[in-house]
Amino acid sequence: MTNDSRPLAISAPEPRSLELIFTKDALSLLHSKYRIVEADPDNIAGLGDEMLGEARYIIGQPPLSKETLDRMPQLRCILNVESNLINNMPYEVLFERGIHVVTTGLVFAEPVAEIGLGFALSLARGIVDADLDFREGRELWGGDGNAKARLVAGSDIGIVGFGDLGKALNRVLSSFRANIRVFDPWMPPSILREHGVQPAGLDEVLSNSDFVFVVASVTSENRGFLGADAFAKMREGAAFILLSRADVVDFDALMAAVASGHIVAASDVYPEEPLGLDHPVRKLKGFLRSAHRAGALDSAFKKMGDMVLEDMDLMDRGLPPMRCKRAERETVSRMRSKPVTRN
Amino acid sequence: MTNDSRPLAISAPEPRSLELIFTKDALSLLHSKYRIVEADPDNIAGLGDEMLGEARYIIGQPPLSKETLDRMPQLRCILNVESNLINNMPYEVLFERGIHVVTTGLVFAEPVAEIGLGFALSLARGIVDADLDFREGRELWGGDGNAKARLVAGSDIGIVGFGDLGKALNRVLSSFRANIRVFDPWMPPSILREHGVQPAGLDEVLSNSDFVFVVASVTSENRGFLGADAFAKMREGAAFILLSRADVVDFDALMAAVASGHIVAASDVYPEEPLGLDHPVRKLKGFLRSAHRAGALDSAFKKMGDMVLEDMDLMDRGLPPMRCKRAERETVSRMRSKPVTRN
Amino acid sequence: MTNDSRPLAISAPEPRSLELIFTKDALSLLHSKYRIVEADPDNIAGLGDEMLGEARYIIGQPPLSKETLDRMPQLRCILNVESNLINNMPYEVLFERGIHVVTTGLVFAEPVAEIGLGFALSLARGIVDADLDFREGRELWGGDGNAKARLVAGSDIGIVGFGDLGKALNRVLSSFRANIRVFDPWMPPSILREHGVQPAGLDEVLSNSDFVFVVASVTSENRGFLGADAFAKMREGAAFILLSRADVVDFDALMAAVASGHIVAASDVYPEEPLGLDHPVRKLKGFLRSAHRAGALDSAFKKMGDMVLEDMDLMDRGLPPMRCKRAERETVSRMRSKPVTRN
Amino acid sequence: MTNDSRPLAISAPEPRSLELIFTKDALSLLHSKYRIVEADPDNIAGLGDEMLGEARYIIGQPPLSKETLDRMPQLRCILNVESNLINNMPYEVLFERGIHVVTTGLVFAEPVAEIGLGFALSLARGIVDADLDFREGRELWGGDGNAKARLVAGSDIGIVGFGDLGKALNRVLSSFRANIRVFDPWMPPSILREHGVQPAGLDEVLSNSDFVFVVASVTSENRGFLGADAFAKMREGAAFILLSRADVVDFDALMAAVASGHIVAASDVYPEEPLGLDHPVRKLKGFLRSAHRAGALDSAFKKMGDMVLEDMDLMDRGLPPMRCKRAERETVSRMRSKPVTRN
Repeated sequence: MTNDSRPLAISAPEPRSLELIFTKDALSLLHSKYRIVEADPDNIAGLGDEMLGEARYIIGQPPLSKETLDRMPQLRCILNVESNLINNMPYEVLFERGIHVVTTGLVFAEPVAEIGLGFALSLARGIVDADLDFREGRELWGGDGNAKARLVAGSDIGIVGFGDLGKALNRVLSSFRANIRVFDPWMPPSILREHGVQPAGLDEVLSNSDFVFVVASVTSENRGFLGADAFAKMREGAAFILLSRADVVDFDALMAAVASGHIVAASDVYPEEPLGLDHPVRKLKGFLRSAHRAGALDSAFKKMGDMVLEDMDLMDRGLPPMRCKRAERETVSRMRSKPVTRN
Repeated sequence: MTNDSRPLAISAPEPRSLELIFTKDALSLLHSKYRIVEADPDNIAGLGDEMLGEARYIIGQPPLSKETLDRMPQLRCILNVESNLINNMPYEVLFERGIHVVTTGLVFAEPVAEIGLGFALSLARGIVDADLDFREGRELWGGDGNAKARLVAGSDIGIVGFGDLGKALNRVLSSFRANIRVFDPWMPPSILREHGVQPAGLDEVLSNSDFVFVVASVTSENRGFLGADAFAKMREGAAFILLSRADVVDFDALMAAVASGHIVAASDVYPEEPLGLDHPVRKLKGFLRSAHRAGALDSAFKKMGDMVLEDMDLMDRGLPPMRCKRAERETVSRMRSKPVTRN
Repeated sequence: MTNDSRPLAISAPEPRSLELIFTKDALSLLHSKYRIVEADPDNIAGLGDEMLGEARYIIGQPPLSKETLDRMPQLRCILNVESNLINNMPYEVLFERGIHVVTTGLVFAEPVAEIGLGFALSLARGIVDADLDFREGRELWGGDGNAKARLVAGSDIGIVGFGDLGKALNRVLSSFRANIRVFDPWMPPSILREHGVQPAGLDEVLSNSDFVFVVASVTSENRGFLGADAFAKMREGAAFILLSRADVVDFDALMAAVASGHIVAASDVYPEEPLGLDHPVRKLKGFLRSAHRAGALDSAFKKMGDMVLEDMDLMDRGLPPMRCKRAERETVSRMRSKPVTRN
Repeated sequence: MTNDSRPLAISAPEPRSLELIFTKDALSLLHSKYRIVEADPDNIAGLGDEMLGEARYIIGQPPLSKETLDRMPQLRCILNVESNLINNMPYEVLFERGIHVVTTGLVFAEPVAEIGLGFALSLARGIVDADLDFREGRELWGGDGNAKARLVAGSDIGIVGFGDLGKALNRVLSSFRANIRVFDPWMPPSILREHGVQPAGLDEVLSNSDFVFVVASVTSENRGFLGADAFAKMREGAAFILLSRADVVDFDALMAAVASGHIVAASDVYPEEPLGLDHPVRKLKGFLRSAHRAGALDSAFKKMGDMVLEDMDLMDRGLPPMRCKRAERETVSRMRSKPVTRN
């Protein structure tokens, strides 16, 4: 038995690492406040009864059996720093026992919102193609180069999904006096109104927007829910900007809608990642490409550690976690976003 | 003598045209409220004493002599829709007589601010190069593609010039919780503070910013005031975004600073426009190019007509113009921005 | 057995009533979507196994035993519309089973924030006493009447407690460019910063504020935590504004601090309510009184019904409630605010 | 001839004094940058040709004849710190010569807006009467005391006049999600829209508002324009809040409208000031009284000096004043607000 009174936390953050998600100062603080046991995520059960018996936190999302959890009577929280909820532990047991499962995906909201606005402005003003044309001496000057240009200010904007990403997008759009409609069946309409946006059905969002931002998570119910029909409903020349997961769209239908000239698009995510060198999206005109880079900034990863420390501090004092997002008993089993394999 | 009681306005908007700056509805309203005399801008004097004697407004910025103005006793305002003040009329005479000279450049503020933010986000996140790399199959995925990525949120931002453009930029930046410093020697510090920005000297702005936006007009005093010294003061890797006129910078020095890798840059304006096909900026890495397209949107031109109508309505009622920007007795002769020859 | 497929909800909202908390339209909607069983709150057990067995919701906060709950296998949520959590049901059982307990106190946040700002402005500008003096012919004109007047704009403000009330206060204060410090040990500092306020210790809040707003709930730990010491730390002439519950302050010490002239104060709550006719606060100069009226607006009560309907709609679709505030396993037993007996 | 190179400024700020309008530091700065000649406002002509010949500024609003002005060839600006434009100098001569006349009334905007909001909240929540009732033991508790209470949030608000005061009011109201209509015939509608308010006719403002704020200056055209007809158009129970000058209303009609119970009101201004002890407004129920105290805060007066210094600094550098408000050639003769005789 140790007489070290610091609470014990098991570290199994793969594919993240403590160095990725903590700044130096935060890592020092972590070690000063907690006994950190670095564990093989595939063998938490092998840690032994003494350690399991003392563990208050797990930083990471390793596979866990009911039996292993039974050996962890002091466990208060699993801090999932991958940020997708994976079907590798008996969540119902955790909920019954009042053990929190929290995720840190909020850190990606601000970087994703910024690049999303960057995509929208690039599409609206032809920033990428204007630069390429200039490089090659075929640029059009002044108004001649603005035939399709339009403003975000005063435009109609649709947001599909109003979780952390949707809220962050709404924030960066707040200075554009745009008319924003939101489709999110998991959110009560009055909360949307309090955020200054208009609750709307999916069709209404699609057919009345100059810019449609998709930031919805994949669930067991919405896989591929944005297909040919959806794109056909969009305004001529409108921009479709995909920021969450490729699985919510029919990607071929999206490419067809862009190829036909009906809409323009930007995407950060793809049906396979990395994508084959011969994938037709690579040469598609009217399509702005980004290789799953929207959220993965070092500064974002470092905020994960800050969030973990803040919530562990609250739980150390017998309070519920407030900073990370809690898994919900009702929806945890519906989540289907693929976990990442790279940071 | 006509017995048409509508006030008379002389139309000489070249290089604009009434069709460019008025929507159909606004043009109908203009004609219903005013007798419009379309004039050769180079021969206003030839209109004859009767017409000159009745003219209340000139829409445009034609050359005018003191003699011609003496023949226009009813003139209340010259509505310059080119929006740069040109040295082609005796302004002092106009000020003495209380004839307003107003410009409509405000219409460009919102489009310029939006593309300026688009440039900043493109530079911060490598949007253009990431798309090109993707087209050519050499994209980097996830965090690997974000080595130089950074956020606008929470960054240090400098704005040089706080006229209409600077204020519009500040508005679109307002949701990013950035720390904004402004250099504008023509503005009292307390007004800057009321806009939530920090008044600062030029060096302070240059050396403490992650993004520097230049939206200052050219005057007789600031031609080329941003040269090699200025760029050397900037932070390593900072972005310099030029949105007003090329004459305020030493363009060769700007290219050198980018070529050396010290800073990155975007520009909408160039020493000559159009630019020679062999100009080195065309191939310069780290430089984002746009061919004087920042403001010239059709929707912007159409707002000029709205502004002209609103101010003529005020002046018809004996009130001063409030919508357009008035030329100032003290500064009119210092303005040196080249007029545009194309829209 | 009924073949009515509408979900069953037990109604026991005392001291509220359905008529108080639902508008006519909302009440129609409630009845059209749910079978409503109006129950005696003191005898839920008497409803019979059939009804208990079918009940999905309880609207109200009646006493409940474990045995009664065992007879309610379909129960998803107890919607507490009194809005204080009372120790009259086995919360641990509810948490284990995943039955939500939610409260609707959010409806009071906006009315409380508005009257709180009204108190602050009244104290800052002497609105009440200036009107009384005017009635009696002893008013002071112009600057003579402003010896102690000060602005909220640019002032230092402290908020104790940053739940729904604190956030609503922060919102109505957001246009005053004030420097706002918040003490709330249950909130992670980064969330406070995201709301634009500065996390601070209690002493720091007390000693650096021109206005201190107290909107903290009573818990088992903070009863009377604002006493003579606290008031002594406040700035000379600062305003103490009590909006939550009298039990968080030592009321006699508060009165003494006001009587001494050290601070001024406003309060909506009292050690006993109603208050004895001879209570010294009634005549205390420098004290602005309100008789627990801050939240109890009819429009606020009517929002309770809207919240209940929105969350029941989510839960009907298998989703977690998002609109009302959920009781927390960790803190439910710490809550000590007295329930109201009148609306 | 002096060889003191500091510019010369004539000081004649009565009824203000330099001590009233400058902080100690600002006064030191004033003296270090300028030769200050304290003059008898009624005898500027008596200063002698040498002083008049050198004077660049007049701080104050003394009577001036054309002859005296002819002796002041260097005069650049008259800085009126009383802040009403009085008919005591030949403005047309000043405009011809390009001598600015500026006023510092902006300093009152923020204090007036704050007390205006304080009046609105007091009327909406019965703050004054609730306190009086409490003092006298007849208070009503909880909802019983809120029969007439309503929120500013989400209400319909009208503002009459959108100068500095109207804009400041709009700012403090910006966090209340109110629907704000503005009547100001001197302002182009598009500027109102840019401030987020709805341009409207006077009748529309009166008949559609829960709160009407009057912040219009008195002109030769609007004296008494708010009379019995205007009050009759207001909503039952709406609040009329008068903050600018009593001369814009028919005060007897206003009192009658309040006495009848049709509306409630607050006023900071009166037909005569000070007001007779037997004036019926003193006892009028439903009327909240303040004795011309809305703007006259010491902190407001001190800002006048700051404004004067900022604009003199601009003019010293050959730039136009930007901080104070300039008199307008078209409207200077229409202004009819009585100058103040006390601070």
